[in-house]
Amino acid sequence: MPLTEDPAGWRRLIDAAELTRFVTEALHAAGARTSDAAVTAEVLVAADLGGVDSHGVARLRRYVEGLRNGDINRHAVPETVSDKGSVCVLDAHNGLGQPALREAIDLAVSRAEQFGTSAVMVRRSNHMGIAGWFAERAARAGMLAMVSTNAVPQVAPMGTNEPMFGTNPLCYAVPTTTSPLCFDGATSTVSRGKLEQLDRLGEPMLNGWALGPDGQSTTDIPETVQGLIHRKGYALLPLGGGDKDHGGHKGSAMSLLIELLCGPLAGAQWSRHTYQNGEGGLGHFVFCLNLNALGDADTIRAGVDELAQEVRSGTPTDRQAPVRIPGDRRRLVTEMRKEGGIPVLESVVTDLNDIAEFVGINPVAALTYV
Amino acid sequence: MPLTEDPAGWRRLIDAAELTRFVTEALHAAGARTSDAAVTAEVLVAADLGGVDSHGVARLRRYVEGLRNGDINRHAVPETVSDKGSVCVLDAHNGLGQPALREAIDLAVSRAEQFGTSAVMVRRSNHMGIAGWFAERAARAGMLAMVSTNAVPQVAPMGTNEPMFGTNPLCYAVPTTTSPLCFDGATSTVSRGKLEQLDRLGEPMLNGWALGPDGQSTTDIPETVQGLIHRKGYALLPLGGGDKDHGGHKGSAMSLLIELLCGPLAGAQWSRHTYQNGEGGLGHFVFCLNLNALGDADTIRAGVDELAQEVRSGTPTDRQAPVRIPGDRRRLVTEMRKEGGIPVLESVVTDLNDIAEFVGINPVAALTYV
Repeated sequence: MPLTEDPAGWRRLIDAAELTRFVTEALHAAGARTSDAAVTAEVLVAADLGGVDSHGVARLRRYVEGLRNGDINRHAVPETVSDKGSVCVLDAHNGLGQPALREAIDLAVSRAEQFGTSAVMVRRSNHMGIAGWFAERAARAGMLAMVSTNAVPQVAPMGTNEPMFGTNPLCYAVPTTTSPLCFDGATSTVSRGKLEQLDRLGEPMLNGWALGPDGQSTTDIPETVQGLIHRKGYALLPLGGGDKDHGGHKGSAMSLLIELLCGPLAGAQWSRHTYQNGEGGLGHFVFCLNLNALGDADTIRAGVDELAQEVRSGTPTDRQAPVRIPGDRRRLVTEMRKEGGIPVLESVVTDLNDIAEFVGINPVAALTYV
Repeated sequence: MPLTEDPAGWRRLIDAAELTRFVTEALHAAGARTSDAAVTAEVLVAADLGGVDSHGVARLRRYVEGLRNGDINRHAVPETVSDKGSVCVLDAHNGLGQPALREAIDLAVSRAEQFGTSAVMVRRSNHMGIAGWFAERAARAGMLAMVSTNAVPQVAPMGTNEPMFGTNPLCYAVPTTTSPLCFDGATSTVSRGKLEQLDRLGEPMLNGWALGPDGQSTTDIPETVQGLIHRKGYALLPLGGGDKDHGGHKGSAMSLLIELLCGPLAGAQWSRHTYQNGEGGLGHFVFCLNLNALGDADTIRAGVDELAQEVRSGTPTDRQAPVRIPGDRRRLVTEMRKEGGIPVLESVVTDLNDIAEFVGINPVAALTYV
């Protein structure tokens, strides 16, 4: 039985500005300050705009519920608890992740403008949407930026089948002569959101993506998704899989680096101990490297363009599929959806309007079916 | 036909101090300054000590030949060409990679002591051995360190079968209460050195590691190794393989990040254009983050220990194999080999003594067969 009843094709177009209006109002009605609601809405809608539907408004309900029931502190104001010039630590006071991480980014950018490079860590935070939005913000200010976060424990480190690590995105962005080149992907082979998406589309999951509670590979999507949500011993596998043959130790080590940065180094919980004692306890980190401190920024930007263009010009393994650089597809989808609207699953539209009734705002104005 | 005639078991024990003495003398006799020879020898022998035989003294010949024929500039002194406080750029002037990268590390450490974080890039460099030696050096000085390098083009970016990227190691080290936790691994699924090693041991290579010139997966080790060396259109695949199913786009994006940092951002060649015009042209980068700038370093070190110990205590997927943290095995092997000697393949011992005759130094004193 699929997780949702959506026929794959039933989606409705929603104008990006209308969706942003709606999400902002919903978050504000749930108790968030207007400015916090606005940045959180912008990050969520950016995911839908870029085709990362798993990280967009489909997640609105858990934000609204978290704000209303107090799991997320609606009064929190991120606080700088340590300031050593190029290295700072913020305490998010269990507020929304997006405003806290945006503040970390802006601080990291300003410190890298001053010192050349900077690192800003966030502790006691919550889910912050797509890391790419934040890394691109720094890249538009002239930085090579790396951004990551830990998350609810779902990934088994190499050698064990216990889910201890988060899906811990590896994310970076770098300025080009036009819009930033940006990569943002989980350090697990797939994310739970990807499994949910395949389920909606009626497509299979593959061996080597996840383990069941018996430690064996599983390809049952609904069981795996439910087993991950309800912590029944299911685990996603790191990039490279569950053994050394295809480099599982490397994916696991990448994920561990993010655990270290977002956990003990940030003074936050590592993923295994997040969501305990009534708060998320997540950690995020940001590194910025100012292109101006390395040399002539225009020359570097042109060099990045050239490298990207050479890779795009490589002989494609599949003649139907041009070689792409990270972010190429997302940029294209964003342009199309800004212009023509965002296709949102009918089940998500229904959910949004349930939320509207619940918090007492106008429903979202959905356009035609597509 | 295997690449070498070694029966898998024929190795001879060499004392670590003797091997270091020998490599230092050989490099010095080939024209390197004593201090440059010493650090290069230390890094090469550290690889053998840790069981990373593919990056150790088996590579001595190419260093000696490079120094003698002028491909590596034996008179080079690394020069700081840009100094912006926490961000510096060194020009290695086509000298040995090890002395240049060690200088970059020491500079990065001292700048992170001053500013909290630092980035140092190296351009116009050559092969520098194992990145882990350098990252651990910074970690012993109290830094979380990331170190990488580009390399000869052998890896096909996602979507093409043209070898454009290097095997670009992802490497980091972080202080603990004892010796640093360190990971160092190629961002390709396997390295060419690993293929050569499997060939010596008579073990097979797997599908999804490399492509032949026809763009199809290949499992012929000698053909692949020769095809990579002689640039006949063979390519290694990134971590995650050649398609998105197992995350090839993620491994490719990690490798691209290293290309960007070591190429256009460092003012160096990216891997595709290395080893042209009579010099390596490689780029390296170092990031340091001073634990003291984040908080109480002892608390952070204890937190790292605790995280590592919890992972090690996870239920093992294979009851015979305890869960390991990156560097655990290498540390164990290093201790054993420091004590009992380094087992070196007989063919490598023969090669070392050929080199000794060639440059006019005493042969290496090899002990018993093992």
